[in-house]
Amino acid sequence: MSPPVETWAEQVRAGDVRAISRAITAIENHQPEAEALLRLLFPHTGQAYLTGVTGAPGTGKSTLVDRLAAYHRKQHEQVGVIAVDPTSPYSGGAILGDRIRMQGHAADGGMFIRSMATRGFLGGLARATAEVALLLDAAGKNHVLIETVGVGQDEIDIVRLADCVLVVMVPGLGDDIQNMKAGLMEIGDIFVLNKADRADADRLEQQLLAMLSLVMPRDGWQPPVLRTVASENKGIAELAGTIAKFRKHFGSSGERQRKHVEHWKKRLIELLESRLLERALGGTGGEARLTELATEVAERKKDPFTAVNEVLKRSGLDG
Amino acid sequence: MSPPVETWAEQVRAGDVRAISRAITAIENHQPEAEALLRLLFPHTGQAYLTGVTGAPGTGKSTLVDRLAAYHRKQHEQVGVIAVDPTSPYSGGAILGDRIRMQGHAADGGMFIRSMATRGFLGGLARATAEVALLLDAAGKNHVLIETVGVGQDEIDIVRLADCVLVVMVPGLGDDIQNMKAGLMEIGDIFVLNKADRADADRLEQQLLAMLSLVMPRDGWQPPVLRTVASENKGIAELAGTIAKFRKHFGSSGERQRKHVEHWKKRLIELLESRLLERALGGTGGEARLTELATEVAERKKDPFTAVNEVLKRSGLDG
Repeated sequence: MSPPVETWAEQVRAGDVRAISRAITAIENHQPEAEALLRLLFPHTGQAYLTGVTGAPGTGKSTLVDRLAAYHRKQHEQVGVIAVDPTSPYSGGAILGDRIRMQGHAADGGMFIRSMATRGFLGGLARATAEVALLLDAAGKNHVLIETVGVGQDEIDIVRLADCVLVVMVPGLGDDIQNMKAGLMEIGDIFVLNKADRADADRLEQQLLAMLSLVMPRDGWQPPVLRTVASENKGIAELAGTIAKFRKHFGSSGERQRKHVEHWKKRLIELLESRLLERALGGTGGEARLTELATEVAERKKDPFTAVNEVLKRSGLDG
Repeated sequence: MSPPVETWAEQVRAGDVRAISRAITAIENHQPEAEALLRLLFPHTGQAYLTGVTGAPGTGKSTLVDRLAAYHRKQHEQVGVIAVDPTSPYSGGAILGDRIRMQGHAADGGMFIRSMATRGFLGGLARATAEVALLLDAAGKNHVLIETVGVGQDEIDIVRLADCVLVVMVPGLGDDIQNMKAGLMEIGDIFVLNKADRADADRLEQQLLAMLSLVMPRDGWQPPVLRTVASENKGIAELAGTIAKFRKHFGSSGERQRKHVEHWKKRLIELLESRLLERALGGTGGEARLTELATEVAERKKDPFTAVNEVLKRSGLDG
């Protein structure tokens, strides 16, 4: 038996961990209550600062995020952490990683950690992550840290919604470092060279600076490279200071309002697409139907317009 | 007075330049005839090889594409060229650049050149380019060359639809080379170092190879770097040979059918999104309405769900 949505919203705003967890599950499962809840909460958002953290597996992102979160907590600020894995079908507050990570902050009501993963072929993970960020914003978190495994377009779409994007790299990963796709260069506002006590750190820093010299500064900001050893808490305060500097750099810009409107134009188009696509192809058998149609088109047995019209007709979106 | 669509389709298949031009205009303007025409033509597609060519302004892409086209013509193959500029609102066969370029091939019925540009805030240029490529395929072109100005996500979406992607770079561009965004590294199947007779060519080649060493080979293909001086027709035959090698590498793969199905799944989702978005926000006043809603949301006067529902209701897509 669920409480009325107004009560639920009050519980979220008060930072109630169970109410927040239940809301995230509702967002992930496209439950209609999620929308009703977010509607009530939306006027109370816009206060949190969103930091996106991405990089290849093995770069120590989770440790870095934990230390950054602990740093903010010491400044008596509330923190929310969303760990997103677009390559995994598993999700929810119950997975092992979250449990272990939560233990360090178990008694801390000012900290909320939750992992999310891909649900289904229609994507929508970026939209779901954005909605969870709004939720944590409304719950009074001053900082929302969004951590993703950085290897593809999905991750880029996810961290792109953040106010500030950190790209984490590490020396001596061997072949794994090749997974650090060059596309990350474009979205990083700050580059973190973690495990900087390793032998190859200088060489990686030079490579990184050489690659960054090919990227144009955005609005007067030249992305810096910061060295950290997250496991020893080294460089964390400096990193938090650089994030604050970045925030100030863009917060003082007269272009801020215009940027927010542009941001929401994109978000509204995404929400619209997601809503319509869900109606057209969501539900049981949607993916199988799409694969079947794509096979017929690839074999030239059916043209793509007929295929799309069939989908629209079946979902009542034609006319 | 238009001829019936069946006649039009016959004219396109016969390679009639006027019929093709009129079809491209219909595709660009979302005219319903375009869909009827492409439906008739679709069974006759699947023969052309699509090569995407991208790179910063000033790299000599147009000259390179012209020379590559001329090379294919000498082999008695038919060629279509689509020059796409996502940053420009101007389009159509009448612009100056096309006229100048066409002069060199004026008497050649085996060559078709057309430029395309962005129409409107809803994007859709990648979809329109894909449809024009289908059209030229049906018109019997053996090679379709898609040329874009490579600086952002739009260009990447456009060349991504090609079977083979060339990224063109040039030494000594100074600041302009910084426009060569690192994201291009990921999508290039072949890298072309044009104007390779310039002083800095060796240094650029080394930088390029260093950056490429960070990108993983895809399905056994390590993207090579080729040197050309397009204006002097140097290296063009070698480039055409490398494209043929790439085609053979992937054409012989047993994964080919699976790849085609995956390709069409994405294309069908895109077409579906484009169709629905056009209905939701296309037409007069659509962009102004979106900007207005985004402003209200950014100012927290309205929540994003209410905004999206208003759009759906207005366009009859609710329920």
